[in-house]
Amino acid sequence: MSNKYQTHSAQEDDTVIVPVDLGARSYEIKIGPKLLAQADTHLAPFITDRHVIIIADSNTKALYQSDLADKIAPLCRKVDCLDVPAGEGAKSLAQFSALMEDILALGVDRQAVLIALGGGVIGDLVGYAAASLLRGVDFIQIPTSLLAQVDSSVGGKTGINAKVGKNLIGAFYQPKIVLADTDVLATLSPRQMRAGYAEIVKYGLLGDADFFEWLEANGTRVIAGEKEAVSHAVMTSCLAKAAIVSADETEAGRRALLNLGHTFAHAFEAEAGYDGRLLHGEAVAVGLGLAFEFSAYLGKGNSQDSGRVKAHLAKMGLPQSLADLPAGKADAAILAGHMMKDKKTQNGVLTFILVNQIGDAEITSHIAVNDVIDFLESRA
Amino acid sequence: MSNKYQTHSAQEDDTVIVPVDLGARSYEIKIGPKLLAQADTHLAPFITDRHVIIIADSNTKALYQSDLADKIAPLCRKVDCLDVPAGEGAKSLAQFSALMEDILALGVDRQAVLIALGGGVIGDLVGYAAASLLRGVDFIQIPTSLLAQVDSSVGGKTGINAKVGKNLIGAFYQPKIVLADTDVLATLSPRQMRAGYAEIVKYGLLGDADFFEWLEANGTRVIAGEKEAVSHAVMTSCLAKAAIVSADETEAGRRALLNLGHTFAHAFEAEAGYDGRLLHGEAVAVGLGLAFEFSAYLGKGNSQDSGRVKAHLAKMGLPQSLADLPAGKADAAILAGHMMKDKKTQNGVLTFILVNQIGDAEITSHIAVNDVIDFLESRA
Repeated sequence: MSNKYQTHSAQEDDTVIVPVDLGARSYEIKIGPKLLAQADTHLAPFITDRHVIIIADSNTKALYQSDLADKIAPLCRKVDCLDVPAGEGAKSLAQFSALMEDILALGVDRQAVLIALGGGVIGDLVGYAAASLLRGVDFIQIPTSLLAQVDSSVGGKTGINAKVGKNLIGAFYQPKIVLADTDVLATLSPRQMRAGYAEIVKYGLLGDADFFEWLEANGTRVIAGEKEAVSHAVMTSCLAKAAIVSADETEAGRRALLNLGHTFAHAFEAEAGYDGRLLHGEAVAVGLGLAFEFSAYLGKGNSQDSGRVKAHLAKMGLPQSLADLPAGKADAAILAGHMMKDKKTQNGVLTFILVNQIGDAEITSHIAVNDVIDFLESRA
Repeated sequence: MSNKYQTHSAQEDDTVIVPVDLGARSYEIKIGPKLLAQADTHLAPFITDRHVIIIADSNTKALYQSDLADKIAPLCRKVDCLDVPAGEGAKSLAQFSALMEDILALGVDRQAVLIALGGGVIGDLVGYAAASLLRGVDFIQIPTSLLAQVDSSVGGKTGINAKVGKNLIGAFYQPKIVLADTDVLATLSPRQMRAGYAEIVKYGLLGDADFFEWLEANGTRVIAGEKEAVSHAVMTSCLAKAAIVSADETEAGRRALLNLGHTFAHAFEAEAGYDGRLLHGEAVAVGLGLAFEFSAYLGKGNSQDSGRVKAHLAKMGLPQSLADLPAGKADAAILAGHMMKDKKTQNGVLTFILVNQIGDAEITSHIAVNDVIDFLESRA
């Protein structure tokens, strides 16, 4: 073991814990440096004497999978490693089917534990696999992208994509523990860091004006990967999401606030075809700007806030307008058509998260699709 | 509407209700004649103003689907009909994937309701589809086989098959209501009635000696489809299963009793290759006889009970020994290998449901696989 792992207790002091309170399904998110290097310690209560299957994508396989397997092997009855191709394509029914057969071919029982080692795609895919395997086995998330650490690792939304849209097939299924190791973010490209940052901004915009102000002052430190800034941003985001999810696990109400900017974002992603040209966080960034503009367009909020939000996104190097997107020239009616397929749509009426001001979002049903089209055309 | 449907209140008197008590997931099983003909009345609380998708197999499509759609259409926002090929093959990952895409292509939201119109295969497939669609939508079961009415309609076990075994991918997911219409059993072949009867016998054998005695006296009336006898048998079976499931929804303990005869049965089915030569109920019948013999072989129970059980199965025209099965000549070690893949297997040790006497079963862990092999070889 290299020298850098020897300051164990000092490192532990840097770990913060965000509890996600969901009764019998409660779990903890540990956030900090060196968590992957100390995975045996952190995961022991959940994997000792169990059959553990670590599922990575081709990127995280190369970076972390065999080290993690070696680290936890002494604790486990058996450790197996599987991987799927990197990218959104892994969230297909075909890839899900292949993964399930691969896991079952290993000879698993209900004491098996799946570890999702990767970004949001791996977390979503493996979470749904764990929910479905033998009607439910334990799973652990080790999110390796900034976006996964602040978003998909909290709240138990798992799922895969269908031809007509994203995340339409899945389960609400909670992990046993999440290790958000801030060290692994050093391997991410600046573009990936910015994409994850868009989800962090969302938490400020939807419910915490002070946090948005902090981001305006410290955002560049977060994107640069400065540890203290990253830890604070990840923790604040996870705390915000955990509070909302605890109150509304299955999105019957307030949880929908987390979709701020996402109705637009999902439409852009559907139009771009999930081919990697457009990252989810980039779509969200544009969606956040549009959510403020759309709110003003409908007589809510104010254009000052819109400008402030877009200025911050621009400063962080994120796209803020339709013109910045590969799907920017898409017909407004086509984008609205994608929105109509969103699973939050009820009885054909659109629900949007609108904003009164920075830090104050609200769920708004009964948005007329023609208003959305008119608005998008005015921005094209 | 034909004359036979006009004695509505008299018919309603024949309906019995079995409540399945699972807290927020509680539901009722209605058992009796004319339930399908009066589906609008019975389903109104669950489908009014909703988008309903009726999923049948090719058999139940021809018999009931369009009538049911016509009957409920006035209540619903929209009714769609889908169907899958009849038979166990529909419980594949490929068929599940195709069904999910077909449902999503209809344009569904979280207010959609799936109706499973068919036997156990349809119930299992559609239940898992409902659990997975948009992370969970409501579903209703209308079981049309005797086996589905007494077994798969109670308890929320949904799922599909993998290459290595049956029901290895799925969810615990409860329906909103079950309509077990005893009239539809008239369309079943005698062989299908006998196969369903095997699961009925199981409830007597695992916990209700009086019921087994009643079956010894009235079994031929049940298989002949005599309404009063069928209703009593279905109700008693559903009550027995509901009591066990209420106490242990996710099979952490006592629910495993319901697997009496099933560890053997699943191995026979795996070996037969799910090609229709062997019905699930037929495999269960042999499994029940073997469970009594295996118990005696291990020093539990007594050979008198074994003889009595096998005599009753024989009288009902059900197979009772390995020699009666297509896979009868399978190597004992191969059958044991199938058992090792069963999802109730924990850490590689087999769990069997053994019997002390008729009406008194118990869960027994730590059965050595060699004992199973020796026993099967002694019976070959």
